[in-house]
Amino acid sequence: MSINRLLIISRGEIAVRTVRAARDLGITSIVAHSEADADSLAVDLADEVVCLGPAHARKSYLNHDAVLAAAAKTHADAVHPGYGFLSENAEFARKVVDAGLTWVGPDPDTIARMGDKARAIATAREAGVPVVPGSNGLVPDADAAVQVAQSIGYPVLIKAAAGGGGRGIRIAHDAGTLRTGVAEASREAEAAFGNGGVYLERFVEHARHIEVQVLGDGTDAVHFFERDCSLQRRRQKLWEEAPAVVLDDNTRSELVASAVALTKHVGYRGAGTVEYLYDPTTREFFFIEMNTRIQVEHPITEEICGVDLIAAMLAIAAGDPLPWSQEHIGHRGHAIEVRINAEDPGRGFLPSPGRVDAVTWPQGPGVRVDTMVRPGSSIPPFYDSLIGKLIVSGADRRQALARLDRALSEVDIEGPATTVEYLRELLAHPDVQAGDVHTTWLESEFSPEGARA
Amino acid sequence: MSINRLLIISRGEIAVRTVRAARDLGITSIVAHSEADADSLAVDLADEVVCLGPAHARKSYLNHDAVLAAAAKTHADAVHPGYGFLSENAEFARKVVDAGLTWVGPDPDTIARMGDKARAIATAREAGVPVVPGSNGLVPDADAAVQVAQSIGYPVLIKAAAGGGGRGIRIAHDAGTLRTGVAEASREAEAAFGNGGVYLERFVEHARHIEVQVLGDGTDAVHFFERDCSLQRRRQKLWEEAPAVVLDDNTRSELVASAVALTKHVGYRGAGTVEYLYDPTTREFFFIEMNTRIQVEHPITEEICGVDLIAAMLAIAAGDPLPWSQEHIGHRGHAIEVRINAEDPGRGFLPSPGRVDAVTWPQGPGVRVDTMVRPGSSIPPFYDSLIGKLIVSGADRRQALARLDRALSEVDIEGPATTVEYLRELLAHPDVQAGDVHTTWLESEFSPEGARA
Repeated sequence: MSINRLLIISRGEIAVRTVRAARDLGITSIVAHSEADADSLAVDLADEVVCLGPAHARKSYLNHDAVLAAAAKTHADAVHPGYGFLSENAEFARKVVDAGLTWVGPDPDTIARMGDKARAIATAREAGVPVVPGSNGLVPDADAAVQVAQSIGYPVLIKAAAGGGGRGIRIAHDAGTLRTGVAEASREAEAAFGNGGVYLERFVEHARHIEVQVLGDGTDAVHFFERDCSLQRRRQKLWEEAPAVVLDDNTRSELVASAVALTKHVGYRGAGTVEYLYDPTTREFFFIEMNTRIQVEHPITEEICGVDLIAAMLAIAAGDPLPWSQEHIGHRGHAIEVRINAEDPGRGFLPSPGRVDAVTWPQGPGVRVDTMVRPGSSIPPFYDSLIGKLIVSGADRRQALARLDRALSEVDIEGPATTVEYLRELLAHPDVQAGDVHTTWLESEFSPEGARA
Repeated sequence: MSINRLLIISRGEIAVRTVRAARDLGITSIVAHSEADADSLAVDLADEVVCLGPAHARKSYLNHDAVLAAAAKTHADAVHPGYGFLSENAEFARKVVDAGLTWVGPDPDTIARMGDKARAIATAREAGVPVVPGSNGLVPDADAAVQVAQSIGYPVLIKAAAGGGGRGIRIAHDAGTLRTGVAEASREAEAAFGNGGVYLERFVEHARHIEVQVLGDGTDAVHFFERDCSLQRRRQKLWEEAPAVVLDDNTRSELVASAVALTKHVGYRGAGTVEYLYDPTTREFFFIEMNTRIQVEHPITEEICGVDLIAAMLAIAAGDPLPWSQEHIGHRGHAIEVRINAEDPGRGFLPSPGRVDAVTWPQGPGVRVDTMVRPGSSIPPFYDSLIGKLIVSGADRRQALARLDRALSEVDIEGPATTVEYLRELLAHPDVQAGDVHTTWLESEFSPEGARA
């Protein structure tokens, strides 16, 4: 089995990233795009293109029939979903496989198993991976939720089984807010995902979000160390680092070993991310979920480990065994990624789509830019507001921070409002310089001049 | 001793590179520029600027008094010479030191000692470093040259003691061409460098040019492995790789050890490059010269070793000991640099200065660009024709080659004629793909469609 013609069904920077990986491997790249992305950089760089339909994602990027028809029409033999859209949709992955195509990702049953958060947590427990004390599955109603909360202690988190990206999540500090929260979260999840199931977890205060990059070939699995993604706004990551400086060597060894154990336990094939909450005061880590796709923040792992994760995904999907054994995977230096969004921090991070009149990206040592924006590009109003990712590397965290400052000072984007100045203020904050942050730090502690709604 | 205000007396991409290193270290960068470079990217990115004088290098970048006056006027406390211009001028370095400023480079006596090729070779012999069989010093006249050539065998090279960049070098295949060559080379060197001394060396056919990056603190010294710079046109490098795939591990160990021995022998302080000819048939290496400055091709070493050589130069110049011990310096993967020049390969590589109307540089994984050119930049006709350096890295040479192909395909420069297509044809050549080249390969074996004068 080999991949010769790859249909790329993501958009934006990850579509560009995937086109580049395909080109490096001599694979023909076919970018499937909506009408709104007809002039995008991914389309420009692709070997071939195919239009999926109108701008609205339900009519293009999320439309199973349109994507399958595009694959047939272009004689694609494989489909790379990137992140977002259909990347974690087990039903769609099954249709791709049933159409005789290679799905560049884990098999549909694994996506379904890990995509249901409650089943994923049960699976982690089976694999011996520590999980956050909680309801161990769905809570049927508010009374049951209150009972669970009494045993694990307040505050508790209410989470949607089918959720993601922070949607459908609430904190409850007492039985009253818990009852209201369960009802609201369930309704919201029913509306958003067609699945109203919710579960409870202990809320770990001042927790770090730490995740482990893994790669499996169905039999064996390896890790590529961890990323610290604790800087989040409304549960959306906007600053990621590798490695996680907060971990001591013993904890790191246990953490990555647990991620590999889970990956092997489910016979995982492809790239994935095992996400944890880490409590720095107790040095405990708890599994929270597994993402069965490539992550936005994968480049920092590529930088410290010297690997190409998209290329590795394609090799695994083509039937190759793992390209590396664990003892050949090392890490070097420190890498940081920041997400530059077309949003106005002065107006509550209101999306700011439109034409980019001029753009200058930074260059030089330790600087990588993954973007879909060039001068004259348009940021359509229909999708996310990511303009690009700035990835910096250095021999140590201090050098990486200095290079981030330098690189951000070289960014010049004319047209949309952006988060560049916000990121520079964030970088200058003593807590960020010291790496002393947690998942709610950004919202509770950081209040820059230009970012008051 | 510390460096707070750095006068940067180079131009083009290395001035930009040095500004970035200064910024990363919190050092104020002061770019000294000619009138022709007043709108350059280095000037744009610098903290402060100072004009040296008219475009002609003798009136600006090579004018000792103008540079020293600029240092005084801007209250600089250190001077970084980059490469070219005054970077290997011992007399000027002495003036900088005498003015109470820090010279970011080895001390003037070391520059003088290694800058005179004949003295450098004698020094290498003292340090036990193999040298090319030759005249062991200057040949006083043509008769003496013929006598030496008879003992080492034809063909021989005639080289100017004060030469560099291929100037003043000739090959002689018999006594007749040797006599003429010595006279011509001596005259040429006298005119160019004010020093007509010449010496002889065995001409190693199908030799590789391999060089070792070193760093010394005056007491101790380390190496950062080697670079293979065998692809040269008119003795100008245009493609460099690290590490050198032609070396076996034993030879590599001996080679880098000899470079460190020489560096320690002269009590070297700063970054330097020890250059060798390597004969792949006999596995012999011969010292040819030492460059007492940063090289154009230093980024490939930075990529494989994960270090910042300009930052290291600044630390050493400020009086720090070596920032690394040898056992902490490793290398990972493979890196390639190509030089993109504003030259017309279809017209004998005629320089093509002028305005760059539009430019798109490649981005993404494994791609670094060090350039001074942005849309609207002008390439002045007074200096070299380097537009920028494209540096690619990969887990192995195959991945680096694939990424070079991808990255070159993304380069788009509108305005001047460039060598981009020439480099793409070079990349596609089976000998280059196999790494099977030598220092005269480009001129003797490579004849692409677009590059016939």
